[in-house]
Amino acid sequence: MNQKIGIGLLGLGTVGTGVANIINSPEGRNPLVARIKIARIAVRDAKKIRSIKVDPSIVTSDPFEVVNDPNVEIVVEAIGGIEPAKSLIMLAIKSGKSVVTANKAVVARYGKEISDAANKAGVYVLIEAAVGGGIPIIEPIKQSLGGNRIKKITGIINGTTNYILSEMAKGGAKYQDVLNDAQKLGYAEADPSADVDGDDAADKIAILSGLAYGGSIDRECIPTKGISKLESKDINCARELGYEVKLLAVAEYIENKKRENHLHSLALRVEPTLLPKDHPLSSVNGVNNAILIEGDPIGEVMFYGPGAGAGPTASAVVADILNIVGIKLMQKEGENSLDPLLSGFSWRNCILANTREISQKNYLRLITEDTPGVIGKIGNILGKHQVSIESIVQLDSNNAKAEIIVITHKVSKGQINDSLQEIENMKEVLKLAAQLGCL
Amino acid sequence: MNQKIGIGLLGLGTVGTGVANIINSPEGRNPLVARIKIARIAVRDAKKIRSIKVDPSIVTSDPFEVVNDPNVEIVVEAIGGIEPAKSLIMLAIKSGKSVVTANKAVVARYGKEISDAANKAGVYVLIEAAVGGGIPIIEPIKQSLGGNRIKKITGIINGTTNYILSEMAKGGAKYQDVLNDAQKLGYAEADPSADVDGDDAADKIAILSGLAYGGSIDRECIPTKGISKLESKDINCARELGYEVKLLAVAEYIENKKRENHLHSLALRVEPTLLPKDHPLSSVNGVNNAILIEGDPIGEVMFYGPGAGAGPTASAVVADILNIVGIKLMQKEGENSLDPLLSGFSWRNCILANTREISQKNYLRLITEDTPGVIGKIGNILGKHQVSIESIVQLDSNNAKAEIIVITHKVSKGQINDSLQEIENMKEVLKLAAQLGCL
Repeated sequence: MNQKIGIGLLGLGTVGTGVANIINSPEGRNPLVARIKIARIAVRDAKKIRSIKVDPSIVTSDPFEVVNDPNVEIVVEAIGGIEPAKSLIMLAIKSGKSVVTANKAVVARYGKEISDAANKAGVYVLIEAAVGGGIPIIEPIKQSLGGNRIKKITGIINGTTNYILSEMAKGGAKYQDVLNDAQKLGYAEADPSADVDGDDAADKIAILSGLAYGGSIDRECIPTKGISKLESKDINCARELGYEVKLLAVAEYIENKKRENHLHSLALRVEPTLLPKDHPLSSVNGVNNAILIEGDPIGEVMFYGPGAGAGPTASAVVADILNIVGIKLMQKEGENSLDPLLSGFSWRNCILANTREISQKNYLRLITEDTPGVIGKIGNILGKHQVSIESIVQLDSNNAKAEIIVITHKVSKGQINDSLQEIENMKEVLKLAAQLGCL
Repeated sequence: MNQKIGIGLLGLGTVGTGVANIINSPEGRNPLVARIKIARIAVRDAKKIRSIKVDPSIVTSDPFEVVNDPNVEIVVEAIGGIEPAKSLIMLAIKSGKSVVTANKAVVARYGKEISDAANKAGVYVLIEAAVGGGIPIIEPIKQSLGGNRIKKITGIINGTTNYILSEMAKGGAKYQDVLNDAQKLGYAEADPSADVDGDDAADKIAILSGLAYGGSIDRECIPTKGISKLESKDINCARELGYEVKLLAVAEYIENKKRENHLHSLALRVEPTLLPKDHPLSSVNGVNNAILIEGDPIGEVMFYGPGAGAGPTASAVVADILNIVGIKLMQKEGENSLDPLLSGFSWRNCILANTREISQKNYLRLITEDTPGVIGKIGNILGKHQVSIESIVQLDSNNAKAEIIVITHKVSKGQINDSLQEIENMKEVLKLAAQLGCL
């Protein structure tokens, strides 16, 4: 009944290790995580010392062995690159196994072939981690926006270039200098061309628009311009004119009535683009990603978060695994059973903390008599209750009254309330005019 | 085989009409939309004239008749309020019918009773529209973040109060004046108390944290403070100190090692809160909503969009319907069939537009000789190709060279490329130094 579902992990690099870390520590996560076990792992070098403990008996250097292992029900491809990744994915599908992959290059180029094979074999190939790192974007497009006609997708979907552009904008530094720094910090690869030339972003917008518009996209036809020729002068000029420069990937639906049969077409492109400063994407900085989707009737929604990294990518891979596991469990339990992921049952008791235990910064405004020493007395009372002060400001006084604004560091509501009781009892304090939380 | 799945619509107000509009115009939406039909509708006043055409034979003024109708497989509750909404939801569940509802008041108070009954009956009760309007947030928490331990949820989840606070921050206007305007504009109810006192936000954070932390939340115990006593003075002071004031709903996981059994507790609260200006939520203005979720290992992700309105809410309701329809179709088609919503198949041909057809604004930087009349000549060429100019700026010249920056209005790449060919042929133009897109 409670038999675990076996995962075959292809690759134990950054992403694979992140996935294994989640599966090996299910406490506090969705209880379906505890229904998965890693049945087999393929690594390139079985002797390499790793940060993660794995049972050596499940490790092999032959990835095809993992796919063929009868204990493996779901194959997680975390190798990257075109081959052997693509062949392994196709073999898994043909063996009737669902696949989870973060491999945008394979999906952008062979998505149709893969999805046709998967539909024929009755298995899923899920790709949440292929775009936007940890940001839930593939499932929302597939499952949450289906009632919409998608009009436009505008994305910052390459963290490396967004980091470089953010740094260029900040310091007026040159492209090459920032790239060198980014490589030292691990934000850019030794060969950065796939990122800086826009090809990675083109892979990802091909995938997003294929899903949003319901048809496969000819990846090679996407006009793509990178950032390697961008001068910091243009970033600075743009800023003076009220714009930020970002590498955008855009897919736009064009209704062309001139065409026969009212054929619809998509305008796709990847290029450095000026965004007005009040545009929701203009404040997306560093290695973060964000995708803005415009649909009818939803209007504009944006998804924002970390576009890469072991943790975020592993989060997305595990999301896909759980989606498949939910359906597998439903099917195993037979008629009238529910997908546990969709039905959303309770799995632990939630106890609300006593209000006095809640910790945060506080904003206080006090109206006091305009006499010397008031700030000192207030400071003393706060100090007595271990409330440390971030800033304290006295506003201009009039009518012999003064207004004092205090912003505290993070303290418990208990501490702040006890302090305030004493402060309000001070004869110089006329009123606690405002008490607000502060992040 | 292609029999449609019947929906029973309770209520034909803003949300109900929005849902009917989507179902009645499936073209260009996910093909599953075409697999739904509205089988029965309950309205309060059957004689009311409506913006939407409905077959009078399916309309009734008795909502229980809709729930009991054998042609209704999924009940969409769009009445609002506690009763009779709750009884109708419970009746639908007992009749073995899945339910989709936007009713945060019912779900926040009776979520556990409802979900226990639904799990027992083997039906779904989906609530995407109950929080964040159109923003996909419920499904992402349930289906995309399951690998994470959720550490904190911070939300701007009430559009009315966010509109009021944005207006107060903009103009320094008083609460009561802005509220009056908001009521005239339809952004606030005649009785605004549920919004301005924070109760609506408390309902929603109860729902979000129940799902994220896996247990039901005692709604009545959430410390809740609204904005009705907020003075514009504090908003102004906060801004001077580098903060924005927002009505935040916060749920934070506290690991309390002092407690026996290492019990975990949640710190929940709704209150006006200062946010540093660089916080991702601080720029969320107007009736928009945004929810920031911090998890391990994902880090921070944010979901942003319209928090209310017919279109966004209907988009969320239809998303839930499609989720149920996907599973129903899978189950009807028997073994080894796929959930069509999750499997993501192609359903139309996507044709990429010719690059020359892509329309957008353009940023151009030209290096020219520093001679009079150059700007005029450039302007003439652009005009000849119907490229209208948003701004044209000449930078300081040196070495007898000038730099000219042009931002055009929205034009096709064809027009801009033709213009640039002529401009680059001008003897005064030394170089097209930059050509970037612009939103």
